[in-house]
Amino acid sequence: MRVIEGGITVPLGFKAGSLHCGLKAKGEDLALIYSEVPAVAAGLFTTNKVQGAPVKVSRVHLRDNRAQAILINSGNANSCTGEDGINHANLIAREAASRLGISKEDLLVASTGIIGKPLPVGKILKSIPSLVEGLSKVGGKRVARAIMTTDRAPKEEAVRFKVGERLGTIGAIAKGAGMIAPKLATMLAFITTDINISKLALVGALKGSIDRSFNRITIDGDMSTNDTAIILANGMARNPKVTSNGPGLQAFQKGLDYVTSYLAKQMVKGGEGVTKFIEVTVKGARTLQDARSAASRIANSPLVKTMVGGRDPNWGRIVASLGSSGVDFSERKFDLWLGNSLVLSDGAFELRSLARLRKTLAKDEVKIAVDLKVGRCQATVWTGDLTEEYVRINAKYSTRK
Amino acid sequence: MRVIEGGITVPLGFKAGSLHCGLKAKGEDLALIYSEVPAVAAGLFTTNKVQGAPVKVSRVHLRDNRAQAILINSGNANSCTGEDGINHANLIAREAASRLGISKEDLLVASTGIIGKPLPVGKILKSIPSLVEGLSKVGGKRVARAIMTTDRAPKEEAVRFKVGERLGTIGAIAKGAGMIAPKLATMLAFITTDINISKLALVGALKGSIDRSFNRITIDGDMSTNDTAIILANGMARNPKVTSNGPGLQAFQKGLDYVTSYLAKQMVKGGEGVTKFIEVTVKGARTLQDARSAASRIANSPLVKTMVGGRDPNWGRIVASLGSSGVDFSERKFDLWLGNSLVLSDGAFELRSLARLRKTLAKDEVKIAVDLKVGRCQATVWTGDLTEEYVRINAKYSTRK
Repeated sequence: MRVIEGGITVPLGFKAGSLHCGLKAKGEDLALIYSEVPAVAAGLFTTNKVQGAPVKVSRVHLRDNRAQAILINSGNANSCTGEDGINHANLIAREAASRLGISKEDLLVASTGIIGKPLPVGKILKSIPSLVEGLSKVGGKRVARAIMTTDRAPKEEAVRFKVGERLGTIGAIAKGAGMIAPKLATMLAFITTDINISKLALVGALKGSIDRSFNRITIDGDMSTNDTAIILANGMARNPKVTSNGPGLQAFQKGLDYVTSYLAKQMVKGGEGVTKFIEVTVKGARTLQDARSAASRIANSPLVKTMVGGRDPNWGRIVASLGSSGVDFSERKFDLWLGNSLVLSDGAFELRSLARLRKTLAKDEVKIAVDLKVGRCQATVWTGDLTEEYVRINAKYSTRK
Repeated sequence: MRVIEGGITVPLGFKAGSLHCGLKAKGEDLALIYSEVPAVAAGLFTTNKVQGAPVKVSRVHLRDNRAQAILINSGNANSCTGEDGINHANLIAREAASRLGISKEDLLVASTGIIGKPLPVGKILKSIPSLVEGLSKVGGKRVARAIMTTDRAPKEEAVRFKVGERLGTIGAIAKGAGMIAPKLATMLAFITTDINISKLALVGALKGSIDRSFNRITIDGDMSTNDTAIILANGMARNPKVTSNGPGLQAFQKGLDYVTSYLAKQMVKGGEGVTKFIEVTVKGARTLQDARSAASRIANSPLVKTMVGGRDPNWGRIVASLGSSGVDFSERKFDLWLGNSLVLSDGAFELRSLARLRKTLAKDEVKIAVDLKVGRCQATVWTGDLTEEYVRINAKYSTRK
């Protein structure tokens, strides 16, 4: 497997295009991803009780695990918009499908931006013809930018690998920048591949891959109303079909895991106000749920996050947040690591050199690891530090628009 | 019942004193509260799995629900300090009790400040004689200041009320400033009263009162390792003994509830970087747990907090956090109020006037209310907004000291 230049338009048979239709004050805000032939498709959506209209519509359209295009807008989430919102999502899906000459059910929609404002559907409808005309093999990079909201940079990645005698390619883009706090800003990820793969294998591969990447940063199930990850596999690599237990799945999964992990990390690193990438690992937990709860609690603690941002080796805050996680362990029998330094061993001081901890905290990536020593389960959560810039960005989000 | 000037030294028979012993760079950091006669006592402590040494020691000393003095230090939490920490807490308790001429078990200890550093026990031991000598009837106000860490102002309150023919008084002080985020900064509250009351009645009254005040801000059970609330009732008002089902309990409970609510609100208002007091009420929930979870989720959302701080009527964030709380409701059948404005009725737009919402958010106190319409349970959580100042304070907490 090797990493190659580009994103969603690198795999065979995929085109993309984007333009400015007026949802955002400036910059492109409407994008289309298109496969020349119908693709096997899988999607994972927010588990929020309140779901945006595009999520509801795309769920229905994905029931047959087949799709050919994705219409995405930034600047408006089309969420908390009631029946009107659903009608609007259906309207733009129908118009885009009709212009592309495909069935409406083969077109998926996704939106990100402010919640609770009616979608300016006229602006979108008017722009769809130009959007379809502008589809091209080099449009991927611009689409990665068009789906951004407060993201500081576009996020894309592609990999190529062998499946039997054939070369397969996976390309992906993502957006999401509100990840350093319990995540409420929308995460969108779109993955294209020319691999020939069965529905079942694709659904399983996507789910596993998302669990090991984007779900590591969707702490506590605290999600936006619009979170969406979609993969389209159009089979144009003409490899022998990859199935759930057949050959080729491993290579595909490896490639998929690489791009999703890369983008998830980019999402944290490019997060609002983030200056440091933090990896929290909890091992030796009684249950997987315990490991996840403890890691999430530490990763979500504003006091831990500000401490890392301030390069301040105030590790007691990690212990306090761990202790408040409700997870089973003994305060006399757990280890705490900060980077390569063992800070507490069986709950007792091991390291008193604050200078060494300061050095660890000065790095761009900070690892916090805890061994609870009561079981064999482990979980990792990725997050960023909490800075004044985060507050500046979020205090005036809707007003600034 | 009427509110009177002063704090813990207002009730009959209570003295207090404080001084600077060197735990903090400047300002008083060691305090003593003393009752002339042994008092009925009750305490509530952190539920954190990791508990500071003073919490462990005070729990033991409180087993007989009797105490006569409380020794408090700021500047060091004596937490995550192992066996040494316990020995230190016992050592200073024994020394203070001996100087006061009371039993060691009648002396309680509490500490707040940085976690994981050895308690400079020598400095405390050396200062205890002067501390005891300095006890006075007017020492309460200075003690309220001596227990502060990052608090912006001391917090004290007192009330007087009739129990039968006698006048009873309750005085209280509290500290705690890290309340605007999942709370990890220590909350300490000390309440004195001259009421004659049974152990059982006192324990029940304290528990109920804390549930309606400090526990409204101890969101998600996320607590410091040192949280402590202690009440001493010395009986010097000579009222007929208040018992669990006897007369007088109602007047006492009302007075106690008043001072604890007042101090809890002050704690939020004086919280790190807080510019606005936010009250989140969730009613119509299926269970009490649901009501609490939903209210806590909204109150803990950094995006909701920054929105209020920025006076930005981006109410979609409230809906998104509510939806992610895992609580039972239908997105087509819930109401959302911001101040006096009904924003969503049965999940649909009711108010589109952003100007009116901006006006609501410009107030010092902002009320967010949700009616889930699926049950009859209700919960209220108090919090503050999230500002750049919060981050500034917390990024360099241990280094600045």
